[in-house]
Amino acid sequence: MLRQPSIGGPDGYSFTPLVVVELAPDAKEEAVAWLLNKVIDGEQSGGADLLVEQLRPSASDGEKDNRNVFLVGASWQRLLSGAEDLGLFKEFNDGSMRAFTCANRDNFKDFKGDGDDFLSMAECQYIVKHELDSLRAKSETHIPGYEKIKLYPGKSIIRRMQSKGILVQVFPLHETEELKRLSFSWYQKVKLSLQPLDDIRHYYGEGMALYFGFLEYFTFALMPMALIGVPYYLFDWEDYDKYVLFAAFNLVWCTVILEAWKRSSATMAYRWGTLSRKKAFEEPRPGFHGVLGLNPVTGREEPLYPNTKRLLRIYLVSVPFVLLCLYLSLYGMMVYFLAEGWALTLHAAEPGVWTAVLTFVPSVVYAVVIEVMNLIYRYAAEFLTGWENHRLESSYQNHLVLKVLVFNFFNCFASLFYIAFVMHDMVMLRQSLATLLITSQILNQVMEAFLPYWLQRRRNKKMMRRASKRANRGEKEMTLADQVRLEADMSTYLGTFDDYLELFLLFGYVSLFSCVYPLAAVLVVLNNITEVYSDAFKMCHVFKRPFSEPAANIGVWQLAFEAMSVIAVVTNCALIGMSPQVKSYFPESETQLIMWTAAIEHGLLALKLILTFVIPDVPKHIQTKLARLEFESLEALKKKSLIRGR
Amino acid sequence: MLRQPSIGGPDGYSFTPLVVVELAPDAKEEAVAWLLNKVIDGEQSGGADLLVEQLRPSASDGEKDNRNVFLVGASWQRLLSGAEDLGLFKEFNDGSMRAFTCANRDNFKDFKGDGDDFLSMAECQYIVKHELDSLRAKSETHIPGYEKIKLYPGKSIIRRMQSKGILVQVFPLHETEELKRLSFSWYQKVKLSLQPLDDIRHYYGEGMALYFGFLEYFTFALMPMALIGVPYYLFDWEDYDKYVLFAAFNLVWCTVILEAWKRSSATMAYRWGTLSRKKAFEEPRPGFHGVLGLNPVTGREEPLYPNTKRLLRIYLVSVPFVLLCLYLSLYGMMVYFLAEGWALTLHAAEPGVWTAVLTFVPSVVYAVVIEVMNLIYRYAAEFLTGWENHRLESSYQNHLVLKVLVFNFFNCFASLFYIAFVMHDMVMLRQSLATLLITSQILNQVMEAFLPYWLQRRRNKKMMRRASKRANRGEKEMTLADQVRLEADMSTYLGTFDDYLELFLLFGYVSLFSCVYPLAAVLVVLNNITEVYSDAFKMCHVFKRPFSEPAANIGVWQLAFEAMSVIAVVTNCALIGMSPQVKSYFPESETQLIMWTAAIEHGLLALKLILTFVIPDVPKHIQTKLARLEFESLEALKKKSLIRGR
Repeated sequence: MLRQPSIGGPDGYSFTPLVVVELAPDAKEEAVAWLLNKVIDGEQSGGADLLVEQLRPSASDGEKDNRNVFLVGASWQRLLSGAEDLGLFKEFNDGSMRAFTCANRDNFKDFKGDGDDFLSMAECQYIVKHELDSLRAKSETHIPGYEKIKLYPGKSIIRRMQSKGILVQVFPLHETEELKRLSFSWYQKVKLSLQPLDDIRHYYGEGMALYFGFLEYFTFALMPMALIGVPYYLFDWEDYDKYVLFAAFNLVWCTVILEAWKRSSATMAYRWGTLSRKKAFEEPRPGFHGVLGLNPVTGREEPLYPNTKRLLRIYLVSVPFVLLCLYLSLYGMMVYFLAEGWALTLHAAEPGVWTAVLTFVPSVVYAVVIEVMNLIYRYAAEFLTGWENHRLESSYQNHLVLKVLVFNFFNCFASLFYIAFVMHDMVMLRQSLATLLITSQILNQVMEAFLPYWLQRRRNKKMMRRASKRANRGEKEMTLADQVRLEADMSTYLGTFDDYLELFLLFGYVSLFSCVYPLAAVLVVLNNITEVYSDAFKMCHVFKRPFSEPAANIGVWQLAFEAMSVIAVVTNCALIGMSPQVKSYFPESETQLIMWTAAIEHGLLALKLILTFVIPDVPKHIQTKLARLEFESLEALKKKSLIRGR
Repeated sequence: MLRQPSIGGPDGYSFTPLVVVELAPDAKEEAVAWLLNKVIDGEQSGGADLLVEQLRPSASDGEKDNRNVFLVGASWQRLLSGAEDLGLFKEFNDGSMRAFTCANRDNFKDFKGDGDDFLSMAECQYIVKHELDSLRAKSETHIPGYEKIKLYPGKSIIRRMQSKGILVQVFPLHETEELKRLSFSWYQKVKLSLQPLDDIRHYYGEGMALYFGFLEYFTFALMPMALIGVPYYLFDWEDYDKYVLFAAFNLVWCTVILEAWKRSSATMAYRWGTLSRKKAFEEPRPGFHGVLGLNPVTGREEPLYPNTKRLLRIYLVSVPFVLLCLYLSLYGMMVYFLAEGWALTLHAAEPGVWTAVLTFVPSVVYAVVIEVMNLIYRYAAEFLTGWENHRLESSYQNHLVLKVLVFNFFNCFASLFYIAFVMHDMVMLRQSLATLLITSQILNQVMEAFLPYWLQRRRNKKMMRRASKRANRGEKEMTLADQVRLEADMSTYLGTFDDYLELFLLFGYVSLFSCVYPLAAVLVVLNNITEVYSDAFKMCHVFKRPFSEPAANIGVWQLAFEAMSVIAVVTNCALIGMSPQVKSYFPESETQLIMWTAAIEHGLLALKLILTFVIPDVPKHIQTKLARLEFESLEALKKKSLIRGR
């Protein structure tokens, strides 16, 4: 990572800048000095032992640049000890992945002496971020210069300053050269190929790489369905009865691909060293507030908030609110069906081009309304979940995901379920599905491809302006100061939540109802391909570089997709049971038909459950490697205790 | 544990005997000497560092006692270091449970210097057993004196000698005084009270205590059902329609009690220190064989057996065999129904006392046949699972439990399902259930209470004989030698498998069908109460003391009971849907009724799943304590790496 062009380069900083800390332009000087001292101080005196320099003002142009921008770096010894603290896994000499320790460093594969490529820049930035986050107040009762901003022993300084607006942002720097190379191999190549997942992980960290890995996997998993779907669509378009085979295929497909994904995700996570990484103790999330007290676990003084109060907020406010929203969504659906019926009768009364177009209007409007409701609800859910005052970021995330998922699922699929199982109208189901799918895709593409493109153009103009200034001064390359100020202006990437949510809904459309509209898979494949490109583009050029985040799997989303696949089994069984083809086998008794359907469905659900148990989540050869590590550490412990026992 | 009456007592052994090792009377002397040396040798030279003395021949009576019986003990230092090796959890000064370490020993609550009551005798015996089991061959290629009994580096010596018959048995000694006290407070008191679970754990270990804890819990959980069942039975006996409420109650009950059990089991396991104990690396089970090779995990030479071969054996032999047995069981069921029908027509043709009795004969015969088939199948399953050649004891157990459970479930419940859902005959269902339940209980009581009682009487006679001899010699107390020889003759307790299996089937009868036969719960409660007494009696007086086994939960049985409770939800929903009471709400359309039943059942299953997720398996206050330990060890690690990092 020390190959950055900036060491002793034209910019003349004494270290490689890794992370930018931007304070408010009007932050009091004593607070700034205090923070910087904390960052620089050795660990014995409670500091982070990092390197800091002020960003030089952007080469003398008239703009009033914020002077409170600082570059943070670290010595390589500091980074290595940080890597050990965090338990980063690196490749060992024997090819296995092991937690890095300084004592053992010469046995790691790529460790070639001092200050080399051993840690990737993303890892270094992650270490620096962790060290900054764990700067904690000791005896200070408030932030110097701000009497009102209280501190208590153990409170994270950075988080407190950020929540009070003294600290504007902390972000990692892009590596210009690296980024050029990555974006070329990712999406600028003409040749179609797999995404460079290892490079993405190297640059953005495991969390992001797993998202792109899942997107790619999902796209490939859809291929067989898309391939079967096209002839189905072309030759059987009007034959609504023949979807039984397709539904049966769906049913198997959605179980198999999720099981296979778990294994392929474990393989990736092992390669990247996150599979067996132990989770560190979780600190309270920034927004968490409460009365100061002693944490029963750490024994430290920190805000406490009674769990019963939180549960009351959840069950007395959040749950009723979600139910109300579900009711509203249901109400919207009924209005849609009324409008649809009205348009159809109008068309029947006065057939013509305009009334024919009119019959499509309710569907399109409804699709737009769904998207808008999802968006509004999203904000409400974020507010409510914040108000529930969860102590941990992970529990906040789980509650948010749950709220958003339930509503989105209901909002997007309720009408389809209604059409399929109450109205029993397969023609309308197909039409609705097509409208929903196409409208939401168009909306998404606008939001995700054109918006970024437009932001990028605006940014380009700014760059041009600066470049022309540089040209005036006779400089060729962009200075570091320019780069930092440009990146500080870029939007912040808010995480993979929305991206996963979109995939979740697409997965739902395909796994639940694609048997009546075989083109769905084709549409989703097309959408995913453009998604890869637009996501890659926005990661490389629109957003600030996000801090890398170690992840061993896609977390709560795996659960969400699995829940959807259970619903898919039930739905497809019901669709099969309702098909005229199957009905013809039970000409005399509908009861018999339903009984059989229910019995087979229960059998399939049981089988699915058993498969989930029987298929190991981690492939055998990786299990062996993990067991080997476990065994070695047990043996080492035994030896140690023997020596002590003597 | 050193309060045993035997130290320097009349028996004059130089240490407290903990474990008895009995070798074959004709074992070659060099083999015996070699083994004893191994046991005595220090750990540096690969020995177990234990103390051994030969059992003195039983005070000079003419019987040809086996001279190859040895008493094994250990110094208290050895036991403490063994406790550390095994990671035993003991109570710390601050009331939390922590892994014992010698370095830290003075901070443990009951550690009062040397050779005290700190470790219970059961724990000492467990440590000695572990040390004996981990005696491994080094350079020896065969057992001295037995050219043909090969050894390879790392093979457990005790296991090899046991499987070849040179070693007859290894068992821990009973503590006479302790046992008297325990059996008094357990089952000889007249006052009804809870079982002394902590004392049971102290004497028999956590695995056994959890079984008795579960038995007690299950009995209490059945109380409300039994209390509701009696009036139901008395007043609504002939009103077959009114079981809806009872079925609904069942449905909730079976979900709630299992969730609550998980929490109460975690509470117990925390108190006993097994909840957070790390599992040691599992060695191959004694019966495992294969070609010598390098274990990919440990790098040690040991027998390897290809997994594909095992899978072939499972899927090509075991699975078809199980299916065949299921088919036979089904066939038996059909024969039973034929016989039943024949007896009924006979009774209808010639009503009379004898023909009335005859109508009960098929049910009773069928109940006996079921028990016999279960017993035979059990042996077949053990043979097959052994033949599958599993490397680990745990995987052997899982496969065995699965095989036995599936067949037992099918065998016991198939006829009930057939009567309920194919014949729709609630009267017959009730009658069958009662017959099955009562017959199997009578059989069980015979097997479990009278057989032990008879064994105990036979043993008493032997003791009387010895005691009279002692009286002749003027001795009052039984000598240690007498005690050892008596205990060596007692039967070996084969583990909790059969006891859990019985509870599992009883749980099935109650949760699946008790709504049509409300007395079922009462019968099961009565059975459980006698079960506690007969099990306690047999543990204390019929069987050799078993080695204690640390356990954090009831393992695979939790899963089995949960599977049963899922089936119970489905069954009870179906029973409710079939009830005339509910049917009367849907007078015109049976389809509607079935649809509603299926919908509600799916909702309940989903709710059950959600409840399982939402209710934490470990109570909050224990979670906090565990998190505290985790946090402290993380902090300790951090400090250590900081010191190293400097």
